Amino acid sequence: MIKPELISDDIKLDWFRLIRSDHVGPRTFRDLMRHYGSAQAALSALPDLARRGGAAGSARICSRKDAERELAGMKALGVSLIALGEPTYPHRLAMIDDAPPLLAVRGILAALALPMVAIVGARNASAAGVRFAERLARDLGEAGFAVVSGLARGIDAGAHRASLACGTIAVLAGGHDQIYPPEHVGLAEAILTQGALISEAPLGYAPRARDFPRRNRLISGLAAGVVIVEAAKRSGSLITARLALEQGREVFAAPGSPLDPRAEGSNELLKQGATLVTEAADVITVLGPILGRPSPSPACGGGKGGGVEEPEAPASPAGEPGSGERARIISLLGPSPASIDDVIRLSGSSPSIVRMVLLELELAGRLERHGGGLVSLL
Amino acid sequence: MIKPELISDDIKLDWFRLIRSDHVGPRTFRDLMRHYGSAQAALSALPDLARRGGAAGSARICSRKDAERELAGMKALGVSLIALGEPTYPHRLAMIDDAPPLLAVRGILAALALPMVAIVGARNASAAGVRFAERLARDLGEAGFAVVSGLARGIDAGAHRASLACGTIAVLAGGHDQIYPPEHVGLAEAILTQGALISEAPLGYAPRARDFPRRNRLISGLAAGVVIVEAAKRSGSLITARLALEQGREVFAAPGSPLDPRAEGSNELLKQGATLVTEAADVITVLGPILGRPSPSPACGGGKGGGVEEPEAPASPAGEPGSGERARIISLLGPSPASIDDVIRLSGSSPSIVRMVLLELELAGRLERHGGGLVSLL
Repeated sequence: MIKPELISDDIKLDWFRLIRSDHVGPRTFRDLMRHYGSAQAALSALPDLARRGGAAGSARICSRKDAERELAGMKALGVSLIALGEPTYPHRLAMIDDAPPLLAVRGILAALALPMVAIVGARNASAAGVRFAERLARDLGEAGFAVVSGLARGIDAGAHRASLACGTIAVLAGGHDQIYPPEHVGLAEAILTQGALISEAPLGYAPRARDFPRRNRLISGLAAGVVIVEAAKRSGSLITARLALEQGREVFAAPGSPLDPRAEGSNELLKQGATLVTEAADVITVLGPILGRPSPSPACGGGKGGGVEEPEAPASPAGEPGSGERARIISLLGPSPASIDDVIRLSGSSPSIVRMVLLELELAGRLERHGGGLVSLL
Repeated sequence: MIKPELISDDIKLDWFRLIRSDHVGPRTFRDLMRHYGSAQAALSALPDLARRGGAAGSARICSRKDAERELAGMKALGVSLIALGEPTYPHRLAMIDDAPPLLAVRGILAALALPMVAIVGARNASAAGVRFAERLARDLGEAGFAVVSGLARGIDAGAHRASLACGTIAVLAGGHDQIYPPEHVGLAEAILTQGALISEAPLGYAPRARDFPRRNRLISGLAAGVVIVEAAKRSGSLITARLALEQGREVFAAPGSPLDPRAEGSNELLKQGATLVTEAADVITVLGPILGRPSPSPACGGGKGGGVEEPEAPASPAGEPGSGERARIISLLGPSPASIDDVIRLSGSSPSIVRMVLLELELAGRLERHGGGLVSLL
């Protein structure tokens, strides 16, 4: 377990370099930490791992200099870097499978300690939809929740605006200096006075369409529940709802007319069992008991209750895979997602050896990780 | 059990006189039939029963002449009288606790053999609500259902109109010569060509507000399921939904905007577990398996599957209550609804004696029967 007191600025810099290196996402970060025991050791092992995985070129490792430059930029913007395991790291987010090891936060850190509920929905929302989102956000804010959303046009913006005074949290898909959409720069500034902006993306990074689903896992991951207001079929809000379900979060939806295409997705969620919401009380009734359970005190926010898991074996040197073993494991993988458990079973190799080969492939940019312990070759 | 072949015209006339007599509703009718074995015997016993129950004046018994006059009027209008237990009596309706012993039907009797689904909702419906009801009724009609509704303005009229070609059933709160609202006389005539109008009310009877809830039990009772489209709080449609639940019918509701007062009742139903409907398939998915069970053939529509229940004891003379016993039973009753089972238990009297006293009180106009075996003094 990574204990809060271990995360010195030096160690945080190593973490930062590791998570900023090519092909290292939150899951790979966790696996590397498990295997090598520290980010420093993992950074040293990266080139060899990538080479063994069969990387075409050389995978870029974030240099100390680049890391320091970005950290200085963050500091200038008033962005704090919170490590998984630190007391201020949002404790629900710490429990998700792919929690960011480092969270860049701007605004009031105390807002991250509030119980959170997400409100998301259509960008091309109806006036009634926005009005409902505003009413709900205001009432949930007054009930003590921080409203989490994605700073998008429509429902998201309405939810943030109506809960500014209570502390609202916007999760960005890009870097802190790349507010999207641009017309919401003013709203983002307003959020900072009582709430916070959160990002895991590098400074200077402008979000692309494919970044939003990954961002959405943070919206649902931060919150105890997610309310969907006006979602069309195949909309981003439905992705957030699916992620929320995978993360064990409560899913709520506002009903809409069967003739309104903007309600098709939310009505469909209701058919699938989402809780119907017409007022804040519907959310509070469900989340109240959940939040009523003794929550970890700040001092243990990243301790037993979540954070980086205890390694299954001591982070002492595990066996390295032989070339025959590596080939056998790779032969079990293909473009269709396969279960890591199956790969372990079918390969006859030990779990740690299989994980090591998967790590190598991942660092070589040849592996894709899906939810539910599934992987495929790229 | 009353067998179809027993219901001759003479016997039907006795039934008709009995159900048209003061204070005799469907439940009392059934109890009298149980106790006396025939309507003729019950008619003879009525004056004495009412006197023993403490009737203030004399309860009116429908004379043979009055009955024959009304029956002649029905015949002139083309109205058939179907008795509970006859093959054409709608078999689902036969199963409800307070099924009318006689049903006055005008139109195509074969329409009563179709599987039925009710669509009801707000009189002051929105244009979108009516459009949705129409779409749903048309699609359910084409799927083989007869759409049942109440001929009211708004949702009801839309549902009837859109399913005219498939055979739609309107249940009237008044007599067949008292179509309400008057502007729907043309719609009622149109329904007759493929569907039917149903009433249990006497010819010439103009419905009052308090008659509609009683009528609503027939709408839900005929149908395998009830769809509520646009229902405000405390609306008649919610009464129909409640009755449907009591009768074990499936309850469906169309969702609406949380900001639309016309959707408050239907959204509330959804919160309470009604099935959300945005298209006919949502209804068919639920009702298909129910209707897929082998349904009673017309020849046994009123047989084992429903109809008047077997008397618990032969309809031979049961003991008559003594005056002390009667007083004790009455003392257990009051203005708050009490369970008949409790009254039996607390009185120490036999169930048949308690039922006899309740019958007396009912015929004297002093007893009100509620759902779920509850009664109160008036």
